[in-house]
Amino acid sequence: MDKINTSRHISGKFNDELDAVRTQVMNMGGLVEQQLRDSLLAIENSDHDLAEQILQRDYKINALEVQIDEACVQIIAKRQPAASDLRLIIAIFKTIADLERMGDEAERIARVALESFNNDQQQFLVSLENLGQQVLAMLRGVLDAFARMDLDAAYEVHQMDAQADRQYEGLTRQLMTYMMEDPRGIPKVMNVLWSARSLERIGDRCQNIAEYIIFFVKGKDVRHVSPESMARTVGRSAPEADPKD
Amino acid sequence: MDKINTSRHISGKFNDELDAVRTQVMNMGGLVEQQLRDSLLAIENSDHDLAEQILQRDYKINALEVQIDEACVQIIAKRQPAASDLRLIIAIFKTIADLERMGDEAERIARVALESFNNDQQQFLVSLENLGQQVLAMLRGVLDAFARMDLDAAYEVHQMDAQADRQYEGLTRQLMTYMMEDPRGIPKVMNVLWSARSLERIGDRCQNIAEYIIFFVKGKDVRHVSPESMARTVGRSAPEADPKD
Repeated sequence: MDKINTSRHISGKFNDELDAVRTQVMNMGGLVEQQLRDSLLAIENSDHDLAEQILQRDYKINALEVQIDEACVQIIAKRQPAASDLRLIIAIFKTIADLERMGDEAERIARVALESFNNDQQQFLVSLENLGQQVLAMLRGVLDAFARMDLDAAYEVHQMDAQADRQYEGLTRQLMTYMMEDPRGIPKVMNVLWSARSLERIGDRCQNIAEYIIFFVKGKDVRHVSPESMARTVGRSAPEADPKD
Repeated sequence: MDKINTSRHISGKFNDELDAVRTQVMNMGGLVEQQLRDSLLAIENSDHDLAEQILQRDYKINALEVQIDEACVQIIAKRQPAASDLRLIIAIFKTIADLERMGDEAERIARVALESFNNDQQQFLVSLENLGQQVLAMLRGVLDAFARMDLDAAYEVHQMDAQADRQYEGLTRQLMTYMMEDPRGIPKVMNVLWSARSLERIGDRCQNIAEYIIFFVKGKDVRHVSPESMARTVGRSAPEADPKD
């Protein structure tokens, strides 16, 4: 991880503390990525054991959230950070809240993988594949952007969410058609729909984290701003309007 | 609102700043409550105009989130708060993030209200009523607890979520039965299901805010702890096990 603050502090100990917290965030992100990847694998391979492991591992993510939160409070109280150090701490507070909720969504997907075995509707689960891979790529991208506090990489992830939304909408339509064709299968298909929703929400949360990175780097809050304003903030030309939007 | 910090600061200006931020949080909470109440009314009365108003008002909640966030960052940078002042700021950061997302859920419910008019399935929307009222009571309760930083009131709201979860599960089962009986109605019933999910999530977020209040008052992070540990923290006897859980 780049030592983004090293040059600026007289106190080497402060640098060490900030680096330690950032490393913990990356560890937490790595765990969430593993949970998401494994939940997709559990569905793809009907892997009951893997799904169980996912459920058993979620507590680690929760514990890291609490630890990192405490570490950030300690740093604020002891070091009285200002300017970009303070923005880093704020970005970390928000990032870990989103990571923890993503872990919960991965757990929900794993539960669906468990429930939906022993039936002939495995093909519905497989239809989650494309959306799942898109969202996994977003998560990897945003964790990478966070590690380097890379504005461009964060913006790329932010833009990827439109594709995830389109995949989600297509999948939803397809699953509703299945339900109308075979009403007996509705409870199973509903489970797949909930999983699709979980994936879509994970994509949204990756987008949130991208916004926190932009906030840290540029000192500007880009939540709730127009695509044009967002593009200006990161020094890009405005995205072309999507004819589907 | 009680002046919970007044007695402890030499700087009267610091007190004023903290009070101003808390007032803003209460204003934001009031807006979210209005959005939720109106979205339930829009569904109950097929009120198209009201649903449109809800969509147009969401930006106010987003703007307040950004303003309060900035005010908190300013206070940390200028006042270097410690102990309970710092916990208050942290609790506010987290609370407004949940309030903003609740506003988004209310907006989703309003959109469903718009889509589902002009059809004969109004009775499905009405079945959201009980869950909606429970969640609205939770939101009112937790905002009231926040205004007074009242541990007992926060704990009461936290306990109310089990009832909301039961109502949500019952409603989901009922709606799935409707879908299986009349597959042509599936798209409409799905909209109601998404609204039910939104309400259930609002309940979860009220529970989150209750946890931040407990964190502020007791200085203990009660996310992810057992019901027994939570009860001990707030000085209650452990809740009886719910036979349905």
